[in-house]
This record gives sequence, C-alpha cells and structure tokens, in this order.
Amino acid sequence: MIQLDFEKMGGLLPAIVQDHQTGEVLMLGFMNEVAWEATLSTGQATFYSRSSQEIWVKGETSGNRQIVKEIRIDCDNDSILLMIDQIGGASCHTGYRSCFYKQVKDGSTQNIGKPVFDPEEVYGK
Amino acid sequence: MIQLDFEKMGGLLPAIVQDHQTGEVLMLGFMNEVAWEATLSTGQATFYSRSSQEIWVKGETSGNRQIVKEIRIDCDNDSILLMIDQIGGASCHTGYRSCFYKQVKDGSTQNIGKPVFDPEEVYGK
Repeated sequence: MIQLDFEKMGGLLPAIVQDHQTGEVLMLGFMNEVAWEATLSTGQATFYSRSSQEIWVKGETSGNRQIVKEIRIDCDNDSILLMIDQIGGASCHTGYRSCFYKQVKDGSTQNIGKPVFDPEEVYGK
Repeated sequence: MIQLDFEKMGGLLPAIVQDHQTGEVLMLGFMNEVAWEATLSTGQATFYSRSSQEIWVKGETSGNRQIVKEIRIDCDNDSILLMIDQIGGASCHTGYRSCFYKQVKDGSTQNIGKPVFDPEEVYGK
C-alpha cells in the first residue's frame, strides 16, 4: 500500500515534474488524493488547481499532456516526483519548455526560457 | 526586484533541490521569506521546517550542506528551484543520496535509494 500523507498540507501535496530523459525540472503542481489516484490510473499527470479549485489534467487544453514514465515519493511520504514524457515539448502555459524559466541573479531575474509555442495561439488570449 | 508570492500558501513556498551537475532531484523543502533571504545571502540552502517551526540550514547537524549554484523561480513566482552542490553526497536524513528513494510500482513502493551514511552514527538516534 502507498500511504501518502495528504493531511500534512490540508489535502494537497507538491508534485515535481521532471523530464524522464533529460532530468530537466519542468514544473511543480499540487495533487489532492483524487488527482493522485487519477495520475496512477490514467498514466497522465493530473493535478489539483488551487486557483480554479478543480482537478486538472495537464495539457487538456493545450494538448501538452505529460505521460508518466516513473513515479517516486520521498522519505516522509509528503512529496511526489513524476518523471514524464512531455507531449508537445512545453510544460508551461506561457509556452516555455519549463515553468522555471526565470534565473535569479544579483537581486533580479533573467528570462532564460526556451519558447515552444505561442500562448495566444493555443489559448486564444 | 524578485517578487515571490509568499501569500499564496500562508507564507511558505515549495523549493525543489536538484543536483546542479547530474540533474537528480534530491529533496523538496519549504521556504518562508526569511529562509529565502538567508539562502540568497549565504549561498547555502536554508528552509523553514514545518514540523519544528523554525529556520533550518540544510546540513547544519549532519554536515551535508547544500551549496547553491543556481536559482530559478517559476512562471507564477510561487515555486523555487535550487541547483546545488551536495556536500557529503547525501541530502536525505535517512542517509540516502536523494529523499525520493521510493519508487511507486504496481500499487506499492520499492526502495531504490543509494545509502551514503548511517543515520544512527550521524544523528545518534
């Protein structure tokens, strides 16, 4: 049995998403128990959106789904690591490959992201 | 100016720790604003411990400090990625290299961790 400690953070656990081939960290999402079970049963990364308060299959709108290749959990059973194949090459809603496209340097941030798609075209906004 | 959204989660943000050379994800910690500023000013990964409710310099007890090589933040300014050099080779208090040593497979977990130190020797417990 897999016992994740969902109680620790009001029903949500952080889930790191990493490219299973390159090791690049692509994003961090949150899962509740329903999202976790959906991820396990469908093999597609599924999160809980804190802003819209609903289950969110990653890539449902953009097509940039994340196919789960391997899952790990940590020592305390309160963090999840998904190793995935990123369909479409971009994980970020901004169109960048990774959500972590801002490098912190000398008190400010620099955009070092690789643009993959144009969000205006994909989301129409 | 770097504007992190600490309000989103009651003053805490998740911080992923990744080996800056191998890309291996080693752990996930939480930072409050004090821990974030300390990480920036000292160059050593510093977190907020939710269990002991205090600032925690990673490796202060075990010696396994994390020297920050690069920092990134994500699209929404609510997640942090630290790329670090792991002193002593182990990030996990269990003595494993990575905290993510449990692989999820067919409804259970399998320990695939690389033991680096004996926690009984290091923490005396």
